[in-house]
Amino acid sequence: MDLVADALAGQRRALARLLSVVENDGPEAREALARLYPHTGRAHVIGITGAPGSGKSTLAGQLASEFRRRDLTVGIVAVDPTSPFSGGALLGDRIRMRGISADPGVYVRSMASRGSLGGLARSTWEVVQVLDACGYRCILVETVGAGQTEIDIARTADTTIVILVPGMGDDVQMLKAGILEIADILVVNKADHEGADHVLASLAATLNLSGDPTGVERPHWRPPILKAVATTGEGVAEVADMAVQHLEFLRSSGAMAARERARLAERLEGIVRERLLRCTLARAGPVVYEGLLARLAARDVDPYRAADELLVAAGLRPEDGMTRAEGGR
Amino acid sequence: MDLVADALAGQRRALARLLSVVENDGPEAREALARLYPHTGRAHVIGITGAPGSGKSTLAGQLASEFRRRDLTVGIVAVDPTSPFSGGALLGDRIRMRGISADPGVYVRSMASRGSLGGLARSTWEVVQVLDACGYRCILVETVGAGQTEIDIARTADTTIVILVPGMGDDVQMLKAGILEIADILVVNKADHEGADHVLASLAATLNLSGDPTGVERPHWRPPILKAVATTGEGVAEVADMAVQHLEFLRSSGAMAARERARLAERLEGIVRERLLRCTLARAGPVVYEGLLARLAARDVDPYRAADELLVAAGLRPEDGMTRAEGGR
Repeated sequence: MDLVADALAGQRRALARLLSVVENDGPEAREALARLYPHTGRAHVIGITGAPGSGKSTLAGQLASEFRRRDLTVGIVAVDPTSPFSGGALLGDRIRMRGISADPGVYVRSMASRGSLGGLARSTWEVVQVLDACGYRCILVETVGAGQTEIDIARTADTTIVILVPGMGDDVQMLKAGILEIADILVVNKADHEGADHVLASLAATLNLSGDPTGVERPHWRPPILKAVATTGEGVAEVADMAVQHLEFLRSSGAMAARERARLAERLEGIVRERLLRCTLARAGPVVYEGLLARLAARDVDPYRAADELLVAAGLRPEDGMTRAEGGR
Repeated sequence: MDLVADALAGQRRALARLLSVVENDGPEAREALARLYPHTGRAHVIGITGAPGSGKSTLAGQLASEFRRRDLTVGIVAVDPTSPFSGGALLGDRIRMRGISADPGVYVRSMASRGSLGGLARSTWEVVQVLDACGYRCILVETVGAGQTEIDIARTADTTIVILVPGMGDDVQMLKAGILEIADILVVNKADHEGADHVLASLAATLNLSGDPTGVERPHWRPPILKAVATTGEGVAEVADMAVQHLEFLRSSGAMAARERARLAERLEGIVRERLLRCTLARAGPVVYEGLLARLAARDVDPYRAADELLVAAGLRPEDGMTRAEGGR
């Protein structure tokens, strides 16, 4: 049985198992990802982020239905542990999601396990790669909109939708938390609720205040502000239209290539970093390693000198070009 | 002028500049940290985490006052960009904080800048190290309670206080998000509000359900659930007492040593990882690097083979022990 071939051929059970393999990391995961890689790069990855209760999952579900009507296959990756897609919801939500999950053109994956620092961002990236390779054309990545890791995950998306809602009180806080910077499309959800106009106005003012939000990654794209009522589907088609428009913009402006380059560089460097570390630890051996940790705990050596000593013990001679290298985390 | 010596001697302006140096990373930061390191390891680092609006900053302020009454110097590190300590608050909050900031025995630092993946966790760790070396005996680290990065930051604390409040609706979500796992002390803040008893009861039930929460890092410590009204100071002395009791537990049980070992190992590995990567990139040169990125984008090579090629180009021969090393992010 060949999981990769079967998943590429569209077998859902093979895909499910392949995703578990990839999430668990290890040599099998790497081999699989290497084989899948030539098939990637075709999906439109859309990040959906917002505070708990802002309606991320509901909007994701509606967007999935909308893209299905447009004959696109849809993958949904729920990074938010409180998402109904992750099973972390009230019964009503889960029933609402069931319709989507039953559609063979939709594949839902929840990133239930929590990794170490950066582990979640890595595995989310890889799950998206697998779905991309297996032919899902729209991949919706749902993350809770707070915290650096979520921002890093959002960066793996082509298009990032940030959801705000009236009356949450934390809208200003989200903006301050740097969420606005990553938004390609702003959606004021629950637009039928009181206070929606206030959110719209303050968003528009904030965008104007920040001047031309043109950046290296976002030349000439001014994030539009859309209204939606995700529970009824109102405004969802417009959000989908705008996402498609943003993708076209990314492609025509060259921003797509720049974003992909940054993602690939991060991925490549991450692999090299980890490989070299493990090799160094293996070469230096546990006795040296434990000895250094004991001396660190005793404050006999500082972390930078300890790193030098570890490299020397691994036969990597920091003086031989290594001294030019810089420390840091 | 010697920033490190001046900061160690208690000069606040030198400390402020030193913290900026450390936050910006670079060779100066590393030299400073190496010199400060022998002076570290004496502070009690207390993480305070909770959703926006749960009263983290108010509790941090009250705890600071309480520890001051006990004649301990206090450092406050606000990682939450919405914290009044970071200036991200309503005027009333900021006025409330001013009393603390005026006390020479309290030093407040806001982690305003946002780094790349893991950058915030690294710089928070280093800011705590500096404050520790400079004689602050209690260091309160305030983080917004959502997201993997925040959990990683919380791990750098000796004692982690998780705040829950009645009527926020996201209590269950926080628990599901793994926040409970990192809690050494649970505080139900706004205990005078309706629904406080409900939060207390559901917390107690959750703790009982999870059975004995004994782990490698937390032998025989059962997180106590305390009530507080941070705005009036009610229950704050009890929280401080419990934090001190937890520190004593960590010391007597050997858990302190285990936690520190894990932190130091992470730090050491982080430095080695980054140093080796930068050395590899410098040796391989930009032409090879850019070429690999172009081939990655064209799907001519997968990330794992690209990593191999980069190592070979850097003269690091993956076959020479490197093949045993594992990939990953």
